Amino acid sequence: MTQKIVLKSRPVGVPTPQNFETQTTEIAELTTGMVRLKAHTFSVDPYLRGRMSDAKSYIAPFAVGEPIIGGGVALVTESKAEGLKVGDYVLGMFPWQEEMVVNATGMQLVDPKIAPLSYYLGVLGMPGLTAYFGLLDIGKPHKGETVVVSGAAGAVGLVVGQIAKIKGCRVVGITGDLSKVDYLINELGFDAAVNYKTETNLAGALAAACPDGVDVYFDNVGGEISDAVISQINKASRIIICGQISMYNATSQPVGPRIQPTILKKSALMQGFIVNNYASQFPEGFKALAQWVGSGMLKYTNTTFHGFEKLPDAFIALFDGKNLGKMIVEV
Amino acid sequence: MTQKIVLKSRPVGVPTPQNFETQTTEIAELTTGMVRLKAHTFSVDPYLRGRMSDAKSYIAPFAVGEPIIGGGVALVTESKAEGLKVGDYVLGMFPWQEEMVVNATGMQLVDPKIAPLSYYLGVLGMPGLTAYFGLLDIGKPHKGETVVVSGAAGAVGLVVGQIAKIKGCRVVGITGDLSKVDYLINELGFDAAVNYKTETNLAGALAAACPDGVDVYFDNVGGEISDAVISQINKASRIIICGQISMYNATSQPVGPRIQPTILKKSALMQGFIVNNYASQFPEGFKALAQWVGSGMLKYTNTTFHGFEKLPDAFIALFDGKNLGKMIVEV
Repeated sequence: MTQKIVLKSRPVGVPTPQNFETQTTEIAELTTGMVRLKAHTFSVDPYLRGRMSDAKSYIAPFAVGEPIIGGGVALVTESKAEGLKVGDYVLGMFPWQEEMVVNATGMQLVDPKIAPLSYYLGVLGMPGLTAYFGLLDIGKPHKGETVVVSGAAGAVGLVVGQIAKIKGCRVVGITGDLSKVDYLINELGFDAAVNYKTETNLAGALAAACPDGVDVYFDNVGGEISDAVISQINKASRIIICGQISMYNATSQPVGPRIQPTILKKSALMQGFIVNNYASQFPEGFKALAQWVGSGMLKYTNTTFHGFEKLPDAFIALFDGKNLGKMIVEV
Repeated sequence: MTQKIVLKSRPVGVPTPQNFETQTTEIAELTTGMVRLKAHTFSVDPYLRGRMSDAKSYIAPFAVGEPIIGGGVALVTESKAEGLKVGDYVLGMFPWQEEMVVNATGMQLVDPKIAPLSYYLGVLGMPGLTAYFGLLDIGKPHKGETVVVSGAAGAVGLVVGQIAKIKGCRVVGITGDLSKVDYLINELGFDAAVNYKTETNLAGALAAACPDGVDVYFDNVGGEISDAVISQINKASRIIICGQISMYNATSQPVGPRIQPTILKKSALMQGFIVNNYASQFPEGFKALAQWVGSGMLKYTNTTFHGFEKLPDAFIALFDGKNLGKMIVEV
């Protein structure tokens, strides 16, 4: 027997611990093609909020009463699958369950000697690839341009900002905490960072931080933060829509200033994406990220909750901006 | 002495005849490099509204007390400019003035034997090139895709729809008049057309007209019409922001549903543009448009006001959707 965490009810607005339930469950029998795993580290990500609702999105909703499924790293404890042996670590999409028997298809072997296991959930995993392809393929930052990133101290944002620095841009982060402002500027080399929670005039603070306007805006947050950035965009600017965390818990249609007149006046481009659009190019992205991490040009950090039962708390804390870098749960 | 029409005061909201004044003026002396012109046909265009305000945009505002400047075709009546002789017709940006002496730089010779002179202001001019580059370069319509165009019976919209038909798309126009619905379907071969003024459920009418969703949206109008279209977009759809005429007369910041969550869910692209971004490719666009016009694949029509003094009325009528095709004034 083992523990699993299921979606007990669909959240309305901000998720609460009552939307989740820990249950005892049997572990399936090990048959050919399957592995027995012990969960090592789980990733919690804002996009999971979308799957907890039953609204149509780019990915099917979770069923009520069934486990949440998210990214994770696990240890192989028994194997009837080719190419996987006891002691291997694998990266994949796993149910929130401490021990499990699952089909080995689609799992990726990861090497704790190359990078800490948690990095495969962050800078060398989906968040890192999201930053890499969104910024470079859509944003196309040129040397000397100004790149603004919202959710700058999050799992994706801090990679975006550092890649933009590597590309020779002026980088301005938007975040919601003084210690994060300090981290972005003094640890990661951002040129400026703005605390949206304490700024009474966010557009003014951005104008001061971006004296030449905004050429690329990598948006993880949306809402009023984006209104302030979009008011500063330059001609031929690029706006990358990666996330809209400020609206994931909205219970009514969010409204705001219409942006099309600005998009028109500035001949600007706005594009939404999900990282899986770039699946065929993941090896290229992984290689570049691993090189930057290896050479010390790309730093990374996690916020870690300890204990399997902390998964819902860690997830809920995302919406309060409690994480610096990737939010993970070590089982 | 001749007549000119100046901007008497900046419009607040919808322009009125009182914002303009006809004045008598001297004609400048003809010196080297100059031509004397008699205005033949003027173009009136929605974008002129932006230049009547002093808000920052992609083009400088008109000065109060000075003539409006817009596209037109004129007859050369005297010339001290190389390459232009009496009897030639020229296309250019001219002050709203019946007779004038102007520098010949930047004018383009046009041939009334190739096409009616008014066509150089429409399908073979800026509106045609706007449709051509916006649809093909940003929209990238593929055979079998659904293309929706707002302002479908306007100078740009009817070219957009016909090019999309030439490219093998399902084409749905949005317009505000029953006779225009009829014209789009029965004269131009649109697959469907929706009258936004009489539809009580525009999104529902669009859903019925676009059973496979919307792949390309060419937007001349903005506002609630766009809200309805954007609610129907497909994955990887393209939204071309060409005009936002519904908001040009707004006296406060227009608000509406935030669109970024949809742009994200659909991995959609939105891009604004002005035709001058494509200036280096105008010859290619002109050639394609002229071929389609010549072969009868691309039809065109004008709404004509007669008499120089009708310029303000014709311009104001644009915002009431009075034009089918290009709105022009024959002097």
